Amino acid sequence: MTESTEKRYSVGELAAHVGGTVLGDTARPIVRCHGLMGAEPADITFVSNVKYMRQLATTEAGCVVVGRQVNEKSIGRDGKPPLTFIQTDDPYFSFRQIVVLIHGFRRHAAVGISPLASVASSARIGKNVNIHPFAYVGENVTLGDGCNIYSGVTIMDEVILGEDCILYPSSTIYEQCVLGNRVILHAGVVIGSDGYGFATHKGVHHKIPQIGTVTLEDDVEIGGNSVVERAAMETTRIGMGTKLGNGVVIGHNCHIGQHNLLVSQVGIAGSTSTGHHVVLAGQVGVAGHLHIGNMVTAAAQTGIAGDIADKQVVWGTPSIEIHQARRVFAQLAHLPELVKRVRALEVQLEKLKPGNSDHSEVGG
Amino acid sequence: MTESTEKRYSVGELAAHVGGTVLGDTARPIVRCHGLMGAEPADITFVSNVKYMRQLATTEAGCVVVGRQVNEKSIGRDGKPPLTFIQTDDPYFSFRQIVVLIHGFRRHAAVGISPLASVASSARIGKNVNIHPFAYVGENVTLGDGCNIYSGVTIMDEVILGEDCILYPSSTIYEQCVLGNRVILHAGVVIGSDGYGFATHKGVHHKIPQIGTVTLEDDVEIGGNSVVERAAMETTRIGMGTKLGNGVVIGHNCHIGQHNLLVSQVGIAGSTSTGHHVVLAGQVGVAGHLHIGNMVTAAAQTGIAGDIADKQVVWGTPSIEIHQARRVFAQLAHLPELVKRVRALEVQLEKLKPGNSDHSEVGG
Amino acid sequence: MTESTEKRYSVGELAAHVGGTVLGDTARPIVRCHGLMGAEPADITFVSNVKYMRQLATTEAGCVVVGRQVNEKSIGRDGKPPLTFIQTDDPYFSFRQIVVLIHGFRRHAAVGISPLASVASSARIGKNVNIHPFAYVGENVTLGDGCNIYSGVTIMDEVILGEDCILYPSSTIYEQCVLGNRVILHAGVVIGSDGYGFATHKGVHHKIPQIGTVTLEDDVEIGGNSVVERAAMETTRIGMGTKLGNGVVIGHNCHIGQHNLLVSQVGIAGSTSTGHHVVLAGQVGVAGHLHIGNMVTAAAQTGIAGDIADKQVVWGTPSIEIHQARRVFAQLAHLPELVKRVRALEVQLEKLKPGNSDHSEVGG
Repeated sequence: MTESTEKRYSVGELAAHVGGTVLGDTARPIVRCHGLMGAEPADITFVSNVKYMRQLATTEAGCVVVGRQVNEKSIGRDGKPPLTFIQTDDPYFSFRQIVVLIHGFRRHAAVGISPLASVASSARIGKNVNIHPFAYVGENVTLGDGCNIYSGVTIMDEVILGEDCILYPSSTIYEQCVLGNRVILHAGVVIGSDGYGFATHKGVHHKIPQIGTVTLEDDVEIGGNSVVERAAMETTRIGMGTKLGNGVVIGHNCHIGQHNLLVSQVGIAGSTSTGHHVVLAGQVGVAGHLHIGNMVTAAAQTGIAGDIADKQVVWGTPSIEIHQARRVFAQLAHLPELVKRVRALEVQLEKLKPGNSDHSEVGG
Repeated sequence: MTESTEKRYSVGELAAHVGGTVLGDTARPIVRCHGLMGAEPADITFVSNVKYMRQLATTEAGCVVVGRQVNEKSIGRDGKPPLTFIQTDDPYFSFRQIVVLIHGFRRHAAVGISPLASVASSARIGKNVNIHPFAYVGENVTLGDGCNIYSGVTIMDEVILGEDCILYPSSTIYEQCVLGNRVILHAGVVIGSDGYGFATHKGVHHKIPQIGTVTLEDDVEIGGNSVVERAAMETTRIGMGTKLGNGVVIGHNCHIGQHNLLVSQVGIAGSTSTGHHVVLAGQVGVAGHLHIGNMVTAAAQTGIAGDIADKQVVWGTPSIEIHQARRVFAQLAHLPELVKRVRALEVQLEKLKPGNSDHSEVGG
Repeated sequence: MTESTEKRYSVGELAAHVGGTVLGDTARPIVRCHGLMGAEPADITFVSNVKYMRQLATTEAGCVVVGRQVNEKSIGRDGKPPLTFIQTDDPYFSFRQIVVLIHGFRRHAAVGISPLASVASSARIGKNVNIHPFAYVGENVTLGDGCNIYSGVTIMDEVILGEDCILYPSSTIYEQCVLGNRVILHAGVVIGSDGYGFATHKGVHHKIPQIGTVTLEDDVEIGGNSVVERAAMETTRIGMGTKLGNGVVIGHNCHIGQHNLLVSQVGIAGSTSTGHHVVLAGQVGVAGHLHIGNMVTAAAQTGIAGDIADKQVVWGTPSIEIHQARRVFAQLAHLPELVKRVRALEVQLEKLKPGNSDHSEVGG
């Protein structure tokens, strides 16, 4: 938390910034964004998940950003002073705008090109680029204006970065990969390592040269220690605005669409493609050579083994439609009782058969 | 193995060290700890898993640490010379004490602060700290006495480490995170990277500044390439004595309790908390905004989608109580036969209905 | 893609190189290997997956490597000029041979030992070894001839590498581990970090010194950010020719057999062994202290909790034989209907019981 140097805003200023409606004290000064739990009188917080709505009864927050349906009457403060609200149509996004305003993003020190970095003389370095100690920039690399390259990063030969990319410590980009603008790689990310390509012949797995590359389009962000394999041929692509969590693995030749959310530990095997606005929750696995349609969502740990049509919501391994999956899982826990019920039916039926109606223990 | 420079102990000395009872040759010299398989006459080994008990019949180990119930009579040596035992109440812990005595932990070379490291002049460095080449220590970092910082480590600005922390190669700590005493980060670990926080507005995922930090309490150990996200606000916390395996991912705002065991590839989504002595086996996934109670255990690959009460043992996706889960899984493999049995019942029942008793093929 | 500097071959030359039969224009010049989709007249491509066979109808590729059963008559070109084929017994392997011929593997720059690397004077460095900036080579390390050590790599004391090993950026090998010849570690790989070994005593997890090592045999390749733990005692071993994907975790004391394929995000707990030619698909988990037989295959996300006999193919958690698993999963989606059918049977049976035959609503 870096609250000490932050600016001070009135609730009214913040509401104006996000186009919201103030219910309460417009003049109240706000210095910090904070979670609902533990928020103090100079803090602004938010509620968008109904699960946390009841905490409004006791919070000491100076202001709470909420949806249009929430107001003083919808909560019970039980004698506590009334809350000040900013109502907006999209409170989570509005709160995000306020966090950006008050705290902003990480500031990158203007270190320039460290004399302790290794930068090839053939590299083309844009303006306002920072390269930290022990970063390595290979031959014929292009770094667009405003890039930040942290310590221990390796950028192999002929990589191209657009503007304002951020490469956090010890991330690696193999040769010839291409990044758009504002791409963020967190620490330990690996882009363009060899695809898992082996031709098995007479019991030996022969490595296939992976002569393709990786393309990360604008505004892609990739979480710590994720890996995107380079294509066997052509390119593995991550579409504009797509965000990967931590420990995600994208196989070679995949074409991931725009504005996807691939949460931590998702794995996608080779040559699979996804449409736009796909959401794969944590630990989802997708087999190779498939197509996942636009706006598909898969719940956590789902295993996808076949193509998925647009807008489907799926769960389970193998994946099925989520409402059906919920019904299945609800029944699954009762499977042993079901087996007993079937056994009882068999016994009873046996008794009912002609000639058996007077036997009490037939049909073991 | 580094047996050559180790000290030599008698079985009696080792038994005294762990408060154990010798059955056999108290004077026998021991120079090395070794697994049961392949142990030699100067080796000490142990058995705590009954699965390996039968190997006692043939081992050539010089001494075996066992529980109080194991003795010469409980095994058949079939003509081989009798074994020497050290009986203790907790043989696995006793053997651990003996490994520490004979072999000890990894020795860290006293390299001091390498001239090839980059250490900010504003950093506060304790006594007996070793910083290896190509490690980066940022502005206003505090390193407690006795810390070892291996090559390629990055410690960003304003991080605080307690005493005797070990950061293995290429691990990264983002700015302002706080580590207690004796914290161990294995190679490639990432602490404090940005939480997966995006506000989706009109189809675009807008990054939310992650202004919180990470706190790792005393005696936390984190396995290779694991990631702990920094909080959106406030702090992500890992409690005292908790041990993470490799490739584990902890989402932002999580509060992991004390003395947890989170085995390799576990993933916990954001804002979830756990009590003390929780055990999550390999590849377990936990959804966000949940609470896992004290002393909960989840079997491997379990998917937890709801709060879990204290002391529950769970398995499966979605997780259920483990005895119930075992019954379910035992029946699940027989589901196709169950379906056939239900079909047979339907056919037979149809025949029994009044007026159908003489039809043999009714009801396809 | 690096097509510009590649050599030019005739279809006839390529067919001769792989022992194939040309159907079509033997003289056609080929300059590049390419995927089927988007291949151009100077490209050679292949089809081994029947899923892509229909794309032969429209491809503009100059030559397609296919199996012996594929020819002009087996596809419909619908007026397009006929294709030129190279038929071979193993088209995927043949195409691999052609990729190696035309494009070859990554070229490693002959940088020698960078003055920006840190190499202990006690290290034994073979001929034609390249060590890039910011790589760290510890005391008494042995690097065989032809090794390539990229930037940010750490090789701790007393490690031994055979010939022609490639360590990509920021990979780490802990002390005393042993690598054979032609071992490849991709970026971020961790070899020999401490095994997850704790003896829990009175509620505290006491770290057990991990005094063993890791042995990687010849021709092992390990994908980005995977981790192989060092043994508690003795050695964790990965057998000759075995290939690990990305984000794989191998627990301490495992003995992985030869020519295994352990796909991305597989996790194997401690002390488990596998035979030869085992295939574990993505996200498979294997419990500890098990043995997986020769030529076993496990489908994606399988959870293995018991020993598996040779040549078994398994799926599911807990794993069962795959044909049975397919039958189970096919029925599982219909479980709610099955429950309804059983309920209906119960109701009907109740009606049929003596004395109930005229009641219509008995047995709710």
